[in-house]
Amino acid sequence: MKINQNYLNLQESYLFRTIAQKVNAYKAEHPEADIIRFGIGDVTRPLAPAVVEAMGKAVREMGDAATFRGYDDGGVGYDFLREAIAGYYAARGVDVGADEIIVSDGAKSDVGNILDIFGSGAAAVVPDPVYPVYVDTNIMAGNKIIYAGGNESNGFLPPPPSSEAADIIYICSPNNPTGAVYSREGLAAWVDYALRSGAVILFDAAYEAFITDPGLPRSIFEIEGARRCAVEICSFSKLAGFTGVRCGYSVVPRELVSADGHPLFELWKRRQTTKFNGVSYITQRGAEAALSPEGLAQCRENIAYYRENARITGSALSKLGIEYFGGVNAPYIWLRCPDGMDSWEYFDKLLGEKNVVGTPGGGFGENGKHFFRLTAFGSRENVVRAMERIGG
Amino acid sequence: MKINQNYLNLQESYLFRTIAQKVNAYKAEHPEADIIRFGIGDVTRPLAPAVVEAMGKAVREMGDAATFRGYDDGGVGYDFLREAIAGYYAARGVDVGADEIIVSDGAKSDVGNILDIFGSGAAAVVPDPVYPVYVDTNIMAGNKIIYAGGNESNGFLPPPPSSEAADIIYICSPNNPTGAVYSREGLAAWVDYALRSGAVILFDAAYEAFITDPGLPRSIFEIEGARRCAVEICSFSKLAGFTGVRCGYSVVPRELVSADGHPLFELWKRRQTTKFNGVSYITQRGAEAALSPEGLAQCRENIAYYRENARITGSALSKLGIEYFGGVNAPYIWLRCPDGMDSWEYFDKLLGEKNVVGTPGGGFGENGKHFFRLTAFGSRENVVRAMERIGG
Repeated sequence: MKINQNYLNLQESYLFRTIAQKVNAYKAEHPEADIIRFGIGDVTRPLAPAVVEAMGKAVREMGDAATFRGYDDGGVGYDFLREAIAGYYAARGVDVGADEIIVSDGAKSDVGNILDIFGSGAAAVVPDPVYPVYVDTNIMAGNKIIYAGGNESNGFLPPPPSSEAADIIYICSPNNPTGAVYSREGLAAWVDYALRSGAVILFDAAYEAFITDPGLPRSIFEIEGARRCAVEICSFSKLAGFTGVRCGYSVVPRELVSADGHPLFELWKRRQTTKFNGVSYITQRGAEAALSPEGLAQCRENIAYYRENARITGSALSKLGIEYFGGVNAPYIWLRCPDGMDSWEYFDKLLGEKNVVGTPGGGFGENGKHFFRLTAFGSRENVVRAMERIGG
Repeated sequence: MKINQNYLNLQESYLFRTIAQKVNAYKAEHPEADIIRFGIGDVTRPLAPAVVEAMGKAVREMGDAATFRGYDDGGVGYDFLREAIAGYYAARGVDVGADEIIVSDGAKSDVGNILDIFGSGAAAVVPDPVYPVYVDTNIMAGNKIIYAGGNESNGFLPPPPSSEAADIIYICSPNNPTGAVYSREGLAAWVDYALRSGAVILFDAAYEAFITDPGLPRSIFEIEGARRCAVEICSFSKLAGFTGVRCGYSVVPRELVSADGHPLFELWKRRQTTKFNGVSYITQRGAEAALSPEGLAQCRENIAYYRENARITGSALSKLGIEYFGGVNAPYIWLRCPDGMDSWEYFDKLLGEKNVVGTPGGGFGENGKHFFRLTAFGSRENVVRAMERIGG
């Protein structure tokens, strides 16, 4: 049997699997080690009480013939959730129709699966450093990757390329891994570039809930013209701690049409209703509850907790004279590895000497080779202990 | 922006959406109509008590910091569920390793997504009539489709093609839509053909739980040689009523390698860990409970209920002199439309005159044009009333 030869061009192992293997090898040699993990960006706070209550109720409904639900009719998400998501935007003054939303099992799935509707051989602009999924999924599709370089001089907020034409553009703001957040002007430059070159922007807003500065955009649709060139992909993973529950959504405005006149919403809906069968009813009720006034207030307490972790981490790094980006309006702290170390060297040193696990910037691209990502998603106790160890 | 031109070759609308539109249009004109639906193969019995209990417990665990779970580490399913699935096979004497299983959100997702690892331009053998997802996903991938014709003379169990070479082969047994079930000899002919032509079989076992005849194979891996040529895709949707909960799995034996020596399990795992982020912890605990002795006994009560529906339906059709296939060891009844009607004519007649909704065989392919699918997944009351109406 023949296989997709593009898969052979992938790096051998997904970044976080490599880290897991290194940590497991270390643990096997040092079974007594008390390892603190700030690696994969996984949350640690439990689900909000409103979410737990709504999901418990939904489970009971599924056990009763009178209220049992089978397939999510239509496969794009229940109206109750799509309307709640539209309301979440409306509360920020962003006009998104419930009928422009498709509910999914997470932003990672959407980011990967949506490439299906663009076919093979596209030119994709991705930032460097970058969430590895953007790169790997484009390699799998046989697309050409054009890197937009983020670095210290542009604050890890790369501007659009000056010359090359693009078909697909990835923007993640607040950024994973750097924690950098685009201003309105910064995003407007990308929207202009996309409209000029006829490209589609895939805007990854997974970390929008961490923005508290009212001057910073939480949605690409706050930018004039974005409805004609952008898809927004978002998630309940970081807003509501749903990494183990699995729910996300995409917003595809009705103004967004291909060069030959095909509405992208219809193509994406066709992809999803053919290769996907909707999200668990229980999960959708939980997501709806997360967006209720009570649920949002509870979720925001968790986010405030993580933000305080980020503040403590940044403050400790500053005291140590370690330069960093992010950590404000974002759950990631992106630090320059001390003493000119490269990022895997620093990873090994932190693991071996401090029993602290972070993510080597080199795993996110060339421009990350001397940087290192810490997440704010740990417990307060672990954040404090880890920073004491790093400082010790 | 460019789009995947293969999407333009798709039929305008997915079969079940067309049916839903027709039914909605009828309801708009006849708001008082008491419509009985045997269309989409959706279950109606509530979840088993053991499943409800396990999911309720998992929801509470997610609300407690001490037991909260984030990402499914590894993204291929928790060991507790993969081991339970391996045990489900072992109980039938089929040797499948837990490390050969990847848990997903459903068989439809797996059937669609796994094409990614085979790339574009493959030759796919699909039965006719056929579950539309096999056809649509291959059109999306730009693959060539070779139909293996099922008809009355072969009992809707097509044998392998005699000449053409294939890369990918779809087999669904018990079959959707015909309810036909392959014998061991029937499947062995396909395994021989796949091994000879170097093709991979995608064996859709979503309805295996409906087989009670011990002489019929419930897994392709009951057939000698299948571990070298077949992937099995299965689901909790019909076994445990999970259509609204979303859980499935694929089994990729370690002996299964591409012509150039790449283990398919690794390619598929790479696809899933890159474009998917695992299944809800709550759902996985529910699936585990469905496979417990208590859960299985409860699920089998529901299946027995649906099997009795199929028996009642078949018996009523026989009395009316309507010829049918399936309905035994399968939840589908595949009947020949009376009076030489084509299947959409019969659909309109049943909807308009009897207010009964089924699925026109023409939606499943050329060979279904004069057939009609009824499902056994309705309530007993509706099955009895529908058959009275059809006979009246």
